[in-house]
Amino acid sequence: MTSSTLPETSIGSLPPQSREQVSQFMQTLQDDICAKLEAVDGQSHFREDSWDRPEGGGGRSRVLSEGAVFERGGVNYSEVFGSQLPPSITKQRPEAEGHSFYATGTSMVLHPRNPYVPTVHLNYRYFEAGPVWWFGGGIDLTPYYLFDEDARHFHQTLKDACDSQDPAYYPVFKIWCDHYFHLPHRDEARGIGGIFFDYQDARPGLLYRPQGSPDSPSPEEDPALQTSLGERSWDQLFSFVQACGNGFLPAYVPIVEKRQPMEWGERERNFQLYRRGRYVEFNLVYDRGTIFGLQTRGRTESILMSLPPLVRWEYDYHPEPDTPESKLYDVLHTPKNWLDL
Amino acid sequence: MTSSTLPETSIGSLPPQSREQVSQFMQTLQDDICAKLEAVDGQSHFREDSWDRPEGGGGRSRVLSEGAVFERGGVNYSEVFGSQLPPSITKQRPEAEGHSFYATGTSMVLHPRNPYVPTVHLNYRYFEAGPVWWFGGGIDLTPYYLFDEDARHFHQTLKDACDSQDPAYYPVFKIWCDHYFHLPHRDEARGIGGIFFDYQDARPGLLYRPQGSPDSPSPEEDPALQTSLGERSWDQLFSFVQACGNGFLPAYVPIVEKRQPMEWGERERNFQLYRRGRYVEFNLVYDRGTIFGLQTRGRTESILMSLPPLVRWEYDYHPEPDTPESKLYDVLHTPKNWLDL
Repeated sequence: MTSSTLPETSIGSLPPQSREQVSQFMQTLQDDICAKLEAVDGQSHFREDSWDRPEGGGGRSRVLSEGAVFERGGVNYSEVFGSQLPPSITKQRPEAEGHSFYATGTSMVLHPRNPYVPTVHLNYRYFEAGPVWWFGGGIDLTPYYLFDEDARHFHQTLKDACDSQDPAYYPVFKIWCDHYFHLPHRDEARGIGGIFFDYQDARPGLLYRPQGSPDSPSPEEDPALQTSLGERSWDQLFSFVQACGNGFLPAYVPIVEKRQPMEWGERERNFQLYRRGRYVEFNLVYDRGTIFGLQTRGRTESILMSLPPLVRWEYDYHPEPDTPESKLYDVLHTPKNWLDL
Repeated sequence: MTSSTLPETSIGSLPPQSREQVSQFMQTLQDDICAKLEAVDGQSHFREDSWDRPEGGGGRSRVLSEGAVFERGGVNYSEVFGSQLPPSITKQRPEAEGHSFYATGTSMVLHPRNPYVPTVHLNYRYFEAGPVWWFGGGIDLTPYYLFDEDARHFHQTLKDACDSQDPAYYPVFKIWCDHYFHLPHRDEARGIGGIFFDYQDARPGLLYRPQGSPDSPSPEEDPALQTSLGERSWDQLFSFVQACGNGFLPAYVPIVEKRQPMEWGERERNFQLYRRGRYVEFNLVYDRGTIFGLQTRGRTESILMSLPPLVRWEYDYHPEPDTPESKLYDVLHTPKNWLDL
């Protein structure tokens, strides 16, 4: 495909220093998140490792281990470039094929110790490759024990961040998140979702840009994915990603503060370790960020620092009916709308 | 591709009841292995679950949990059929595209409790699909603490089984195993290998049949992969797979009996749990059997029963130099020839 087949090449409308602007934001996001998480933990500190990628670029990985609140937390910033994107991406963005690329982003996974405190994941990223550029990312919550009020608070905070930019965003990106963080082999959601989006650029059209995977719905199948917008500028999209990134702490920290004091025992711990197995299955089998990292020969320890410190698999486990554990499964089998839209 | 482009269709040379013969052997193999492992464990017994696959076929899964010797052991027999093979296989066997298929096999993974006893994996399988049929499989050992004499015993027993059929087999299938059970993102072998082969059918030519993955060497690059054989009959190949399958117990059980009495403590247990993480990474990211199972919507609990009961990930762990742990890493970074060939 040549760039002449595109409705309009986006690259012409890039502002000066687009890369530096996003890269600076991604680093500040990492700084802000780490500072606040250390304060919340009150015991452990992030260790930082800076690394270079032989093919171009590098990053700084920060890991907090054995904290009072967080059994492990990893917050990665990276900025990589090279002569070509891996197949997992060019399959989705054929216009990028044969071009050098630039990518920067921040990602994070937190594994709390207390099973009543949910695991959370965040990833925002930006790409430039030949005639195209785009933003992607999202944030999603994975509780072990479900509190409806926490799920509503999380989704409401994300919706507020989205709505500050465009009210069309949240309803589409919430559904997209449910589709993305889905384990087909378990027919389960990874958690209670959040927002997710990819391939967001200036071109007008559907907000939902299908990913070509057999498990992605085509927009015709889901009326909630029909929303179209007109042309958006690079500045508008960058502003949206900033609003999303800055929405993380107010979405998550109040939940930690509310659940951390709750007492837990062996039953809750066993269930948490078992459910962490689903996180491993998702990240290693399906997650685009993990696969991108491994395919581009990123720093393995930084890519896999999202994996939990301790995990259990149990053959053919099913929760007892009418227990707090089974309440979680009900929602994982049928993703819920947490807000009145 | 039509069958007329094949050098010769193999299907004409199938013996009567080819499917029944292999299926019967695979079930007997499962029976023999389970009976012996229960005797070795001396405490726990296999639980059997029979299951049907909605699209055709089924299997019987046997799991032993919380044994004296085996923390978890899973031995699966399955026989599945359907209207088409998944892309992961037709990419390698385009002649099978558009044809219905039949597949049967036995697979096994054992996770011992004592870190001095190695983990072991076995899988033998048989396919028929339109104009083609083939055998595949192998067996490999994953020690946590390395004893050279155990590695030599394991490889010698496999070599003897191979040699009973054709002395050309072991040298090629040993290298193929080293290539297959390799984690590119860690630049590590999964363990000390064994034998592995795939796509073995009647057609004359190279024994090594490249798999089209970027990490598979092409035969030109490795002189050890140059061996060619003439036409082999279905009976010869079936006999070879039987010899391999029956070689498992004499290859593994003496190692268990020798290492099980060794005392171990927290250090060894921590290392074992950490190294089990590599097993999870390999099975979920690379293993063809796991991916085939998940893509064909097999029974998830049977496919993933190869995952260890308890696993640990630690950020940026490296063994101390000159320790038993670092001795293992030396061999994982540079696969070794355990026998004088």
